Amino acid sequence: MREVYVIGIGITSFSRLEYPLVEVAGYPAMMALKDCGLSKVDHVYVSNMGASRINRQTGFASAVVDHLSLTPAGAELIENGPASGASAIKTGFMAVASGVHDVVLVTGAERMREVDNLEATDFVASLTHPLAEQIYGVTLPSLAGMFARLYMEKYGITSRHLAMVAVKNHDNAMYNPFAHLHERITIEGILDSADAMTNNPFVAEPLRFYDMCPVSDGGACLILASADVAKKTGKPMIRLSGVGQATDTHCVHDREDPTDLLAVRGAAAKAFQMAGVAPGDVDVAELHDAFTILEIAESEEVGFFKKGEGHLALEEGYTKLKGKLPINTSGGLKAKGHPVGATGIGQAHELVVQLRGEAGERQVKDAKIGFSCNFGGFGNNVVALVFTKEK
Amino acid sequence: MREVYVIGIGITSFSRLEYPLVEVAGYPAMMALKDCGLSKVDHVYVSNMGASRINRQTGFASAVVDHLSLTPAGAELIENGPASGASAIKTGFMAVASGVHDVVLVTGAERMREVDNLEATDFVASLTHPLAEQIYGVTLPSLAGMFARLYMEKYGITSRHLAMVAVKNHDNAMYNPFAHLHERITIEGILDSADAMTNNPFVAEPLRFYDMCPVSDGGACLILASADVAKKTGKPMIRLSGVGQATDTHCVHDREDPTDLLAVRGAAAKAFQMAGVAPGDVDVAELHDAFTILEIAESEEVGFFKKGEGHLALEEGYTKLKGKLPINTSGGLKAKGHPVGATGIGQAHELVVQLRGEAGERQVKDAKIGFSCNFGGFGNNVVALVFTKEK
Repeated sequence: MREVYVIGIGITSFSRLEYPLVEVAGYPAMMALKDCGLSKVDHVYVSNMGASRINRQTGFASAVVDHLSLTPAGAELIENGPASGASAIKTGFMAVASGVHDVVLVTGAERMREVDNLEATDFVASLTHPLAEQIYGVTLPSLAGMFARLYMEKYGITSRHLAMVAVKNHDNAMYNPFAHLHERITIEGILDSADAMTNNPFVAEPLRFYDMCPVSDGGACLILASADVAKKTGKPMIRLSGVGQATDTHCVHDREDPTDLLAVRGAAAKAFQMAGVAPGDVDVAELHDAFTILEIAESEEVGFFKKGEGHLALEEGYTKLKGKLPINTSGGLKAKGHPVGATGIGQAHELVVQLRGEAGERQVKDAKIGFSCNFGGFGNNVVALVFTKEK
Repeated sequence: MREVYVIGIGITSFSRLEYPLVEVAGYPAMMALKDCGLSKVDHVYVSNMGASRINRQTGFASAVVDHLSLTPAGAELIENGPASGASAIKTGFMAVASGVHDVVLVTGAERMREVDNLEATDFVASLTHPLAEQIYGVTLPSLAGMFARLYMEKYGITSRHLAMVAVKNHDNAMYNPFAHLHERITIEGILDSADAMTNNPFVAEPLRFYDMCPVSDGGACLILASADVAKKTGKPMIRLSGVGQATDTHCVHDREDPTDLLAVRGAAAKAFQMAGVAPGDVDVAELHDAFTILEIAESEEVGFFKKGEGHLALEEGYTKLKGKLPINTSGGLKAKGHPVGATGIGQAHELVVQLRGEAGERQVKDAKIGFSCNFGGFGNNVVALVFTKEK
């Protein structure tokens, strides 16, 4: 298996974007091509969830290739719900690792604002089981609410711990110019003050407004290449050293213990095994905090902390920007934003920026190993990635 | 790069199916698992175009894995319009070739009947350029009509040649129990008889009703594996020996000569190069005849005949079931049907059946090398595959 390197990166603001979907995918791709000084690639993967239903485009990957003047490079759209981004990166990894292609551009995009006749929550609810969940009105926030209730009861977690995740990630996003939310929040403001219930109402009890990620537009791109090509770019050698993936039951209620996220556990274990590193070796991580409770649960399932102890690490400041293992330095989905198809690539983008030492005020000192967890459905299809900085 | 073999196959009828999309993907997968005697795989790719828009399901690949009890295998949905099937096969090829996975299940499905509030033609038109084609009312049949007009004028092709494709493929479909159309037609009946204009009216001049494929539901599956796994199944060793892909301009009107199908040419050349065979070595081929004119044009672009001479080969019966190079022994898209996401896998299914010598009355004698061309958009993203029977 050939080794695979990240040679170029690009990203848009995660916010409300004015330009068409093809440019949301195209703009970060142009940045990434410029970043590595290439004008052609062998293949393109586009990660996206809503092109067909909300943007009325199929064969969208072909549109992106044409828009970027990258023909005759082949292209496909890769969809794995909210984990589409990391799935596309994994697919690009195999394209280079196999030797079929030398340079693969992986770009993700979502234009969630275009949900004209349907609400974003309804669209995202199409991820749930159509016969056993969706028809009963289940949505992703409601699943997260039920999950949070069980998790908090089982492990003694309070609303204060959830708020700590939000405050930390909003803090981090202040240093990320591409983040959707540039708004510093405090525990006092969102939990303790007289108007906290107005500022931060319940959405899906026990989860409140500030426990939820925003609905964002955005795009992000990674260019992957073989070692030969990577060396010629003169960029820091950032290797995609581990890819892991696992699925769990489609319905959350089919899980023996719904507080276990087996797909997260399985995907992380495989990624670490391929990379030959342990969770304790990680310097910086991006976890899929679409809901604050998920950052805590994932930080345990991937092996950073023992099950039930993630909230204690949070109390100690262990996962803060200046802590021992900074989590979601980008602001996470919570404050950076969650343009579904771009999210996993956005996570990888942050890790590469950190490993390159280009993260400015949010730089993690001497970061050499980065880890990301991209969470599809409600944990039914998860992709984990490990990035390693080589000398 | 590791060698990749087809160890299991399965298919549904291409017709109007009563059961839900997840079973349209799942049933052929069950057949394929039974075919090779496996009950688990490492990864699943699902090829499909309409799950999100017409079936209201996202993260559909996760649903398929769960439905088949194949968790914790990872899964993605692969979309490349009408070429989604061969794109998914190519992706599966890389997964095995790279060594990341040993056994990959590739299943394609479409339930076109579920186009409740929109017409199938409108849905398929979402493949065209949204700003430069679609808003002017362009549809795939209309593009095919314009293409046919130019092609026929340039190369002296008549409506009779187009009808020969239809008659041949309807004939072949009579021997395929899974084909959508079991209806023998004649040149007399669809062109020369007094009521030909009633039986076979113009749809997009010069193309008539019998120049178009039907709108079908259907699913098809291939299981790909490394040589080690393949040998243990005891099945004939059918190697996926060549994969090639190329794109062309998104808009047909941007092409220097719209009668050239450069993506078909490029994809085929790459697939033949990887397989180390020439077009003249092929024993049986499946070409993407969504419109009759395409079988003629593709038979030239892939290298079977000189440009402009495909219709002459047709006149001579060269591409009939008993001819020198039988094309579309399955009935092709024209008569077997075109359930978009399943089509490319259906083509591969037919080739494997032929190379295994299990095609019954439509068997091509001593078939050792099979070739397929799966045509995305209106030729803007094409995937070609070569299958080789080993001793």
